[in-house]
Parts: sequence; C-alpha cells; structure tokens
Amino acid sequence: MSVKRVKSLLFYEAAGTPSGRIVRTLIEKGPLSAREIGLSTGLAKSTVSTALAGLRAVSMVVDRPPNRQNHGVGRPATTVSLNPQAGTCVGLLIGAEHMQLIVADVSHAVLFDRTLLLGVDHKVEEVPGKAAVMLAQAYAELSLSRDTLLGVGIAVGGPVNPMDGRMLRPGGMPNWAGVDIRAMFEPVLQQAVFADNESNCSAIAEMTWGAAVGYEDFVFFTVDLGVGGAIVAHGRVVTGIAGGAGEFGHISIDPEGELCRCGNRGCLELQASLRKPLELASRRFGRAVGSEELIELALGGDVGCQRLLTDTAEAAGRGLAMVGSAINPGLVVLGGRAALAGELFMAPLEAAYDHHTLVKRSDVAPEAQTRFVASRYTRNSACMGAVGMVLRHYGRRA
Amino acid sequence: MSVKRVKSLLFYEAAGTPSGRIVRTLIEKGPLSAREIGLSTGLAKSTVSTALAGLRAVSMVVDRPPNRQNHGVGRPATTVSLNPQAGTCVGLLIGAEHMQLIVADVSHAVLFDRTLLLGVDHKVEEVPGKAAVMLAQAYAELSLSRDTLLGVGIAVGGPVNPMDGRMLRPGGMPNWAGVDIRAMFEPVLQQAVFADNESNCSAIAEMTWGAAVGYEDFVFFTVDLGVGGAIVAHGRVVTGIAGGAGEFGHISIDPEGELCRCGNRGCLELQASLRKPLELASRRFGRAVGSEELIELALGGDVGCQRLLTDTAEAAGRGLAMVGSAINPGLVVLGGRAALAGELFMAPLEAAYDHHTLVKRSDVAPEAQTRFVASRYTRNSACMGAVGMVLRHYGRRA
Repeated sequence: MSVKRVKSLLFYEAAGTPSGRIVRTLIEKGPLSAREIGLSTGLAKSTVSTALAGLRAVSMVVDRPPNRQNHGVGRPATTVSLNPQAGTCVGLLIGAEHMQLIVADVSHAVLFDRTLLLGVDHKVEEVPGKAAVMLAQAYAELSLSRDTLLGVGIAVGGPVNPMDGRMLRPGGMPNWAGVDIRAMFEPVLQQAVFADNESNCSAIAEMTWGAAVGYEDFVFFTVDLGVGGAIVAHGRVVTGIAGGAGEFGHISIDPEGELCRCGNRGCLELQASLRKPLELASRRFGRAVGSEELIELALGGDVGCQRLLTDTAEAAGRGLAMVGSAINPGLVVLGGRAALAGELFMAPLEAAYDHHTLVKRSDVAPEAQTRFVASRYTRNSACMGAVGMVLRHYGRRA
Repeated sequence: MSVKRVKSLLFYEAAGTPSGRIVRTLIEKGPLSAREIGLSTGLAKSTVSTALAGLRAVSMVVDRPPNRQNHGVGRPATTVSLNPQAGTCVGLLIGAEHMQLIVADVSHAVLFDRTLLLGVDHKVEEVPGKAAVMLAQAYAELSLSRDTLLGVGIAVGGPVNPMDGRMLRPGGMPNWAGVDIRAMFEPVLQQAVFADNESNCSAIAEMTWGAAVGYEDFVFFTVDLGVGGAIVAHGRVVTGIAGGAGEFGHISIDPEGELCRCGNRGCLELQASLRKPLELASRRFGRAVGSEELIELALGGDVGCQRLLTDTAEAAGRGLAMVGSAINPGLVVLGGRAALAGELFMAPLEAAYDHHTLVKRSDVAPEAQTRFVASRYTRNSACMGAVGMVLRHYGRRA
C-alpha cells in the first residue's frame, strides 16, 4: 500500500465517486461504522456497502473490531478505518518559546510527540531548519518512509491570511508578522505545508477527536494569557477574509478604555485574560504566580484566588455573550488554562453569558440551549489540530 | 414536464449522481454556464457535459442564449437553466402590518408579486387562511397548476427556532412568539412549508440574486427601525442552535445601559437604529418624520438630518466592528432603509468599523479587506429570500 493510492482516490472525489467521498470522510473523521459513513456522506446503504468492498479489496480500508467500552446498549458495530500504512501526517506547533512536532497516521493514531525549546530570542529564519531535523529524526525513529507523508500542518500564535499565507500584524508573535509560513517551510521541509493560527487548529482538534465531535457548529473560546478562539460553521472553521475570524479577545468592549497591544482600546482581552488575576495574585503573594499555580491555589480553597478567577470568568462570559448574540452557538468549548479550573471558572462564565446574551436558557427547550464544555486538549490542542488540518485539507489545496 | 421529475432527480442526489448535483446547483444559483456548473459542483468538464446532455434529453434543463450585455470581453457563454415548467415556489413575508406573496419558477423568474394589508391588530390565527386565498388567486391568475408548486417559504419578523419551527420570545412580533409557523401553515396551505426570520431570508436573496452573488461568506447587516442581520458561512446561513444568530442589534454593548425591549441592557439597537434620529428629527420639525423623509432631507442638504444619520452610522459601525473581530467578513451587505442614504451612511459606517475592529484596511492587501456594499433588495429582500429558501431547502428537509 503506497501513499499514491490515497492521492488517486481523492482525485476521483472530483468525479463524484462514492469511494472518493468515503475516503475523504474517513480521513477527516477517523474510524466509523458503515452506518456512520452513510450518515456522513449522504450515500445509500447499498452504495456504501459496494464501495467499501472495493476499498477493502485494494487494502485501502481495514476493519476494526468493535470497541465494547464505548457501547452501552445494542450490538457494538465494527468500524472501518483507513489502512494506517496509506499515509502519515505531521503537525508542528510554533510557539513563542518552543516547537512541538506530532506524527500521526491516516487512521488517526499518534505515533510520535516531542517538544523542542526554541528560546524567547529565537531567530525566525532558523526555525524551518530545526523543524526539518526534528521531522527526519521522527521518521528515522519510527522506521517509516518519508514517502508516506501527506503534508505538514503548522500552527502559529497569530492570524494567518488565507489568501497569501502571511502572518498578520496583530498577533502574539510580533517577530513573525508578515512571514509567509508556507513559502518559508515548504522548500526546507520539501512537503506540502498547511498553516493556520493555533486557535483554528485547536478547534479542528476538538471537532476531530475532542469535545466537539459530532458538532457541525460550535465556538471554541480560549482564556489563557490571551483571549481568543475560533468559529466552526457547517463543519468547517470560519477563517475570515484575512484570517482574522475568532479573535474574540480583540472585540473592543470599551472604545475609551485602556490601550491594547493590538492598537485598539478596551479590548476584551484586557478584562478577561489570566494576566490581570496573575498580576494581582503576584502582588498579593509578593512573588511571581503562574497560571497553573493560581488555579491550584483556587481549587485548594484560597478564597482570594477563587475570586480572581470568578471575576475573570464573569468578564469573559460578558464578552462571549456578544458573540452569542451574533452566532447563538449550540456548543462552547472552553480552552486555554482557564479550563483547568473546571466548574470554578465554567459556572460564572456560563451565568454571565446567559445574563447578557439575547437567547437565554429559559427561552428555549434544553436541546436548543447553548452547552458549555471544557476542551479535551487543553494543553495539546493546537499541535493535534495541525495534524487534523492536514487530514482535512490534503488533496483540496488549489 | 412535471414537478415529479425535479423530485426524482433530487432523490438521485443522495446516490451521488452528477445529474442530481447539477440540478441542485441550478435550483440554488439559477442559470449558469457549463464552466460555472463545473466550478460550483467540483465535477470534471466531461462529466458535466455528459450529464447535461442527459438532462436536456428529458427536457429537465434548457439552453438560454448568451446575454451580451453582461460580458465585456471574450465570447459570451450560453447558460443552462432548469426548465421553468419543472416547478414553481412561493415566498410569503409576514410583517407586523402586511403580508406579501411572490411566485417564482425554478429558473428564478418572478411571476407574481402582491402585498395585502393585514392591519396592526391582525389575528395570528387568521393569517394562514388569508395566505391560502392569496395563493389560490395567484395560481388562478397565472393559469398555473398547483402541482408545479414545490413549497412555500415564509419570512417572519423574528428568530425561528430551527429545531421546532417556533418563533422565539425576543423578536419584533410579540403576538407571534411561540407560534409554530410550519404547523400552523402546512395544513391550511397543504404544501411543504419552510420558515425563517426575515434577515436570514434577506441574506438568501442577496446571495442568490443580489449584492452577495459569488460570495460564500458575508455578513448581512440591517439598520432600520431595528438593527439586525445574518451571517453566511461556507455558502449557507448560520441559524444558531435556537435560531438566534445574526441578532446584531441585541449585542449588549453597555451592561449598565438603558433597558431594551428584549430584556437586556444597552443593546446596540438602542444606539444604532433609525429610531433615535427619527425622534430627534420629529422634535426638531415639530411633527412626525419617517425614515424615508429623514433620508431625503439629509440627501437634499439638511445638515442637521445629515448629522443625525452620520452619528447613527458611527454607532452602527462601532457595533459591527465587534462582529468584525469575531468573523472578519470579506463582505458586508448593508440592508434596511439606512442603505437608501448611500455613501452618506456607508462612509462613516465603514470608517467606524475600520477604527474599532482588529484587522484594519491598512493591515492587508486590497483583496483581503472587508468590502461594504448596499443591499440590492433593500425594500423587497425578505420575500424574495423566502422564495430562495424553498429553492435551497426543497428536497433536503428531513
């Protein structure tokens, strides 16, 4: 089984073949039962059955035994997966201080996950070379041929213009502003490169493996040292014309407020990120307090730290309520380290959202209410999402 | 040619046939060239060509001569249209005081357009009967068989819950709150009924025939006696879990502000609708001034009326900038009567948007900037959109 077979089947997708649609669905969603394939593709049961027989015959798909733990009632269904040897992909997260690399196969199994320190003062132009070395190491350690590699997804800490692949000025990594990620990495990695900001990648991780599986529409909302997120509509991330969608932290809630690093005034981030409570906690304890410690202290019963977090959650919920009146999402996935505080943060967030948004819980039946859940990949979402980005976009690039 | 043929081909869509995909595309987008059909469906040129030959043979599609006026350079292309006799659909707009009914065929030609006064105190339960009479009259006058009718789209002045078809509490028509539109109209009209709020319908009109043709992603933003709109992402309207998406007028911009009719405080609508300038103008002239008159006075050079409109545009632009930081749309279509003021309203709206949103014009190349255009259907959009809703949703309803 060579990677070419995945490529050729995706090519047939354009001619509308059921096989092509099934391969695309399995690439995006991971292992599914025949029934789930029918629901996802809209194909008739008999059509799915015929196409799967053909795909099995060429070893493109393999059957997996039913997973008994996931089924409470009824006969557990056998799931169909792409043959893990049909292809691999790489996710790369480039943060302000470090770089993470994950290798996964097309059946969605993670084969390799490692982090490299770059240092705060890293030189941008040195990063592609370091990534190439890391990637070569990974494939050597895994004894895998590079020919299996479908592409590299890169998650970066700021908006990426989908038109020209360049990072925008307003972002968390000023030294990367204006850099064309694809043009910089493709010649060094010698692979198809897909780039997007880390929030959009995190949303892909949540919809592929995490808290948003099965949702076609949701909002991913992160509260950490910054505030951000992503919008997924009709099963796909909304990027915005210039890559600026989901920048919830830079909704200007007070046009005469404090100056923000983005150049506007009174951005939500100034009220609703963890920076403010961290400053106050550090002053109170007379030493630097980090996000994890603040949350641990609060969960351990420190009423001061609890109050700092609930005040932040309230401000965040009020801002998110604005997004709610515009989008009325069925699901909000809370990411960032604030999610580690669990109900302590989630409850006041949800209450403030309901208080300030248009459609309130009391207006509608439970199934039409906005659900709030914590991210499954709070610490690892962007890099997993970079893998998911390759799975989704591979073969679709113009 | 009977309507059954449209139905049967849409059924084949589920089996993934190219013919089914082409019929769906022509229903949604109206007449297209063979090349445009290829781009829209993703089908190969030869596949399109073979399928069209089959559809021509059964009179499902007809060729239209090229429209020379629309082509500046090159050879004008023949377009393919669905056979107008393959089906008709009805759009119904139910406003606070009147009801409008439009009949169009599947080639997108409008055959009938009439408005009936209901009166402010109309009884909700009498409306379906009046609609049935109007519909019967229309088909009699057109000498058309009711068998051609695919369905009736109903646009109403408030959010409709897509889960149960009921109108929500927060909306412009309080006497309709809680009414299940489909359940009320289907037995009387004896037709498939599709219901949505007028802003979502207007967005469908703009993307089908108006200012947003060719855009897969845009924001429709209305400024009239209220402020509202719709979001289109990936070619489809974002309804929200309870139908509450696009309610931009009820973004609470000041949690300690004035009470709004929706029950929240400080909603954008209180600052950015035409109500406030109309009150001020009426006080100034010592008599009631309506929206059209205010705009005419401003366009005629009255500096006071100009200032009332530009102040409103600025407030609206600041609110829209919040939506911009969340969605970063490629296109904003301005609807509602404010659009009748042209550049007088549009210029300060756009300037305020740019001033307060995250991604500014100066950050990106022209093709990645947010464009602002006036709605094409400022006075007639919701009812045309109700027709478009049938064209889009027919055959897809569960």
